[in-house]
Amino acid sequence: MTTQQRSGCPINATVEAFGDRWTLLVLRDVMFGNRRHFRELQASSEERIASNILADRLQRLVRDGLLTRDDAGRGQKATYSLTEASIQLVPVFAHLGAWGLRHRPTNPELRRRAEQLDAGGPDMWSAYMDELRAIHLTPSVPRRRAS
Amino acid sequence: MTTQQRSGCPINATVEAFGDRWTLLVLRDVMFGNRRHFRELQASSEERIASNILADRLQRLVRDGLLTRDDAGRGQKATYSLTEASIQLVPVFAHLGAWGLRHRPTNPELRRRAEQLDAGGPDMWSAYMDELRAIHLTPSVPRRRAS
Repeated sequence: MTTQQRSGCPINATVEAFGDRWTLLVLRDVMFGNRRHFRELQASSEERIASNILADRLQRLVRDGLLTRDDAGRGQKATYSLTEASIQLVPVFAHLGAWGLRHRPTNPELRRRAEQLDAGGPDMWSAYMDELRAIHLTPSVPRRRAS
Repeated sequence: MTTQQRSGCPINATVEAFGDRWTLLVLRDVMFGNRRHFRELQASSEERIASNILADRLQRLVRDGLLTRDDAGRGQKATYSLTEASIQLVPVFAHLGAWGLRHRPTNPELRRRAEQLDAGGPDMWSAYMDELRAIHLTPSVPRRRAS
């Protein structure tokens, strides 16, 4: 993708990396829902993402350096983790959520996280990014065998 | 669109409004390039947007309340303006640009605006939003006839 960018504009470069609604929603679920496995991501999807779309977007996100995939869990058991680059999208998601709160009809139950992010502001986003780093960027603990 | 949202999550609600790369790029060009007419938007497009895609996205943006269309200029002469809702996307664009500057290869000439927005921070975005309000939300001046 990097070599095929339509222009060198930084906004374009960013939207080429994830300016696709499903890509953004998959990242949202890994980031805020801590959903790390294919089946979880599909089964809990509020927007009912189709499995072929999920598979495609996960592959692209790994290729573009926004997720890493731990192959120790083969197939659908693989664990996906955020990268430093995708963790730095927290403020983007905070602003996307804040805009949606103000300009679109939303569901009270699903508003809560966006409201917290909006109220917390940059200091809270930064603390949250540190939490994500601790969860996603630390070397994976030895896998427990399914019994 | 509003009634067909896939979920009531504020992030989803936002990306359903413009989580499409072309939609974002059209808004970017109206917002930062002050390109207000179909032909301008197409001819100056760094990413060479196709005319059918541009026509579709402009129509959707008007339908969703992110642009208004001044029909005084018939056909391709119509003038598009931002709305209060789309002006409030300035911080989203600032963050998108900042992320692209840091995590994607970009073109020095096209980096300048994103660098300025990034350096300026929230105070500058807010001043810029006021400028956009003055340009886009004030009642249109009487049109000059093309001579």
